[in-house]
Amino acid sequence: MSKANDPVLQSWIPVNEDSDFPIQNIPFGIMKKGKGHRVSTIIGDQVIDIFELNKRGYLSGLDIPNSVLKNEFLNDFISLGKKKTNKVREKISDVFKKRSRKLKNNDSDRKAILNDVSKVELTMPVKVGDYTDFYSSRDHATNVGKMFRDPENALLPNWLHLPVGYHGRASSIVVSGTPIRRPKGQQIPADSKQPVYGPCKLLDFEMEVAFVVGKKTELGETINMDNAEDHIFGLTLFNDWSARDIQKWEYVPLGPFLGKNFGSSISPWIVTLEALEPFRTTSPKQEDPKPLPYLKNTKKRNYNISLFVDVIPENGEGKTVCETNFKYMYWNMCQQLVHHTVNGCNVNVGDMCASGTISGPKRGSFGSMLEISWKGSMPVDMPDGTQRKFIQDHDTVVMRGFGTKNGVRIGFGEVTGKILPALK
Amino acid sequence: MSKANDPVLQSWIPVNEDSDFPIQNIPFGIMKKGKGHRVSTIIGDQVIDIFELNKRGYLSGLDIPNSVLKNEFLNDFISLGKKKTNKVREKISDVFKKRSRKLKNNDSDRKAILNDVSKVELTMPVKVGDYTDFYSSRDHATNVGKMFRDPENALLPNWLHLPVGYHGRASSIVVSGTPIRRPKGQQIPADSKQPVYGPCKLLDFEMEVAFVVGKKTELGETINMDNAEDHIFGLTLFNDWSARDIQKWEYVPLGPFLGKNFGSSISPWIVTLEALEPFRTTSPKQEDPKPLPYLKNTKKRNYNISLFVDVIPENGEGKTVCETNFKYMYWNMCQQLVHHTVNGCNVNVGDMCASGTISGPKRGSFGSMLEISWKGSMPVDMPDGTQRKFIQDHDTVVMRGFGTKNGVRIGFGEVTGKILPALK
Repeated sequence: MSKANDPVLQSWIPVNEDSDFPIQNIPFGIMKKGKGHRVSTIIGDQVIDIFELNKRGYLSGLDIPNSVLKNEFLNDFISLGKKKTNKVREKISDVFKKRSRKLKNNDSDRKAILNDVSKVELTMPVKVGDYTDFYSSRDHATNVGKMFRDPENALLPNWLHLPVGYHGRASSIVVSGTPIRRPKGQQIPADSKQPVYGPCKLLDFEMEVAFVVGKKTELGETINMDNAEDHIFGLTLFNDWSARDIQKWEYVPLGPFLGKNFGSSISPWIVTLEALEPFRTTSPKQEDPKPLPYLKNTKKRNYNISLFVDVIPENGEGKTVCETNFKYMYWNMCQQLVHHTVNGCNVNVGDMCASGTISGPKRGSFGSMLEISWKGSMPVDMPDGTQRKFIQDHDTVVMRGFGTKNGVRIGFGEVTGKILPALK
Repeated sequence: MSKANDPVLQSWIPVNEDSDFPIQNIPFGIMKKGKGHRVSTIIGDQVIDIFELNKRGYLSGLDIPNSVLKNEFLNDFISLGKKKTNKVREKISDVFKKRSRKLKNNDSDRKAILNDVSKVELTMPVKVGDYTDFYSSRDHATNVGKMFRDPENALLPNWLHLPVGYHGRASSIVVSGTPIRRPKGQQIPADSKQPVYGPCKLLDFEMEVAFVVGKKTELGETINMDNAEDHIFGLTLFNDWSARDIQKWEYVPLGPFLGKNFGSSISPWIVTLEALEPFRTTSPKQEDPKPLPYLKNTKKRNYNISLFVDVIPENGEGKTVCETNFKYMYWNMCQQLVHHTVNGCNVNVGDMCASGTISGPKRGSFGSMLEISWKGSMPVDMPDGTQRKFIQDHDTVVMRGFGTKNGVRIGFGEVTGKILPALK
């Protein structure tokens, strides 16, 4: 077991029981500092400036260039390779474990390195070259098929044979806390052939988890099930905001476009695959039909990570409208990446692949308002007496996610986004 | 009229009649030089190193930083803004016009600045952040609808109301000359419910023109019909390679993915909108139905640019299988960009938006083998006695495009790509 995953390990930085960031996590993110940016991690509520940590000799022997750590994005850091970035996690674990005194007892170093999370700005952790969205939760695809197609044949013919996916917009992925403007666009009123233009009326979230590519491939190269995990650096929570009315009118035959690309929100920390190792769990059986050999999965590739979505009205009390789990994925991340590259499509460090909406088998575990309110037919009662079929102006959507094992909780922190009214 | 567009202007660099690059063109591209790259242009068959031109004082007064011109991509150069990049075109026009002696008579400067096109490597001109593919030729959409849906209702309900588009893969866009490996993937045999895995059997090209975004917007911002051209830097030829069998099985409901993202090829020069001004022509009437007001077009926004596709077997004689024209677009570039941002989606310098396959009204003007061979039912006879329904291994596809007015021909050069057999 790596030190960073040791369940009895504790840090001299206080960590609350409900913190996502014990010393076993050590995720990576980017903190704004002055006019620059720093590669960072977090323990408890202390954001750790890894550039300063390195500069002051606490990562000695790892030989990491300053430019990698004083950087607007994690891409160069991730490009060092897992072997090195895992050593960084180990070293950080050593520096902050309870018995380590060197940094704890050095006031000036501590001041330069530690930053209260409430006082720092966390920015986009990676520069996303390409972003792909999958559609890999069977319950979600079944719900959508039941609502919009045939309840008896909810899944389309290809769905059980391949992880359906499509390209999304990289430029409009924003970090948690960035407000999202309600989009305008074309919608088709019921029983009309003439579209109208105006603000989206059916604004939705989608609870997803995205992985960040950690190792590039060249055009023509493929990734297989045995080496796929080498290419996955870590995971973030992903809110794939969706304008259902815009999407409905535009998406045939080439897929979602303006119904999605007005914004997607991610949590600021990338939690490494290694930190999530304790939560690895059985993948669903794929027997009927069996996937083609290149997609055949024989290992535990799913992760038992609880996921939550809260909707919070302005100045009001929030409500958890969704409790789901990343383990519900039918197609796992390795299958997604293998399929993505089976034709030779190249991937780059920092590319993002989102899971698609993660829904569980019951209404309370559905990952979008579309499913929760069943196309608006079953509104959600809010604590303030109002109802929600979809997301209203000034609502904030908060997503959270964590796994717990042997008393250690490893989480993602939050991804939040507040909806601003459409521009006049 | 700008000097760079003057039809009587000639250069002291010899320019053949069938050259795409007279002194009126002055497109921009990137040349590899040693271990570095240079922002470049071309007159006749001489590639002009703009970094050297600037360093040796021929662009004095423009105050362009060296780092912008000694650069792997044009993005920083384009980001200087049209006002400045148009001045660069003017200055270059002055330096190379027939009466200008300064550079012509300076042997060492000339040697440092001019490079025979046959001896240089032209690389990807821009770093593409996001790539969008539209579907804006009415004849193409009609042909596809006739083949795969209802010949009586070939266009889908949304098609005449909005420029349908979808996100493509930016990482796999390559420059002319890069070989393309035949992709492998899932296909569904006729009358089967079980997909098979193997090399694509229906490999196709799509003759497209792409524009490069020249001015960024922020998330939430929109572009309108009056300012859209300010955001378009220039155009390239675009071969949207397509694996029809892979695409057919995967594309419902979220659009094309692996059927497209194994590679797209572009011509190395970005021809500015200003150089194409003489070819501006009337846009098609959009009366039935009228587009919504935000898409209403009242100006000449189409371009009369002839486009050609040759298929060349290995060691064999080629055949021009398509002669079409950029003027056939139903939705023009401004409408595409306005629609793309109507929901607040942000665009960045270097983003690429392709037209979709450009087909004219007759078979000889169809922009893909799918249409030319009408799903394989009407094979093309090649000069060597073979036939083509789709593209075979070792075939090279060459696309060309140019406009001619007042004896001046402004073109794109070629985009070529040779198909390599699928890997075993």
